[in-house]
Amino acid sequence: MTASRLDATFAALADPTRRAILARLAAGEAGVMELARPFAMSQPAISKHLKVLERAGLISRSRLAQARPCRLQAAPLKEVADWTEHYRRYWERSFDRLDTYLGRLQRQEKRHGRKGSK
Amino acid sequence: MTASRLDATFAALADPTRRAILARLAAGEAGVMELARPFAMSQPAISKHLKVLERAGLISRSRLAQARPCRLQAAPLKEVADWTEHYRRYWERSFDRLDTYLGRLQRQEKRHGRKGSK
Repeated sequence: MTASRLDATFAALADPTRRAILARLAAGEAGVMELARPFAMSQPAISKHLKVLERAGLISRSRLAQARPCRLQAAPLKEVADWTEHYRRYWERSFDRLDTYLGRLQRQEKRHGRKGSK
Repeated sequence: MTASRLDATFAALADPTRRAILARLAAGEAGVMELARPFAMSQPAISKHLKVLERAGLISRSRLAQARPCRLQAAPLKEVADWTEHYRRYWERSFDRLDTYLGRLQRQEKRHGRKGSK
């Protein structure tokens, strides 16, 4: 259940236009026409992207107004954030290793610098 | 550049087998044979998944040992976490609204409870 929700969320996010639509909707509701404007895309092409986002639960669309404005639904993004959280110590560890490595390089450089100025 | 990296990362994560492989590699390096074991999948099928993960920079494979053990590379997951962070206030806000709603329901229930006990 959660696995297939995550599948749908990750698949929906694997597209720059869909991520840009979410970023736009973070600023407030918008209809298809308005969402299509910044992209060199037809309204049907944008509508397809909106369907993917809606199926993934990342947006909802009003059935009341004719323009059916879209609204951001951020709950699936919390699931993504929670999922990545399991891996935090791994990327922190690799950045620690990088820090250690850069520190060593700097010390070597200083030593070489001193030798050079003798 | 970062956009296409995020595309590749999200697409790679949109599969439960690939996420399970990452979870296994979080416990330490493993070869294809070992990775294939818990899944009802052939080694070529697992190898395909590994290629997707490797292209997305989520794993690296040793070229030294014949078994070419795989290792988790968590840096792209940090990018995913950073990306979701922009939306934190939206999911927190929607959970706040849910809290308010549940609080109101509870107060209504209490009032009904009091009326019932009269």
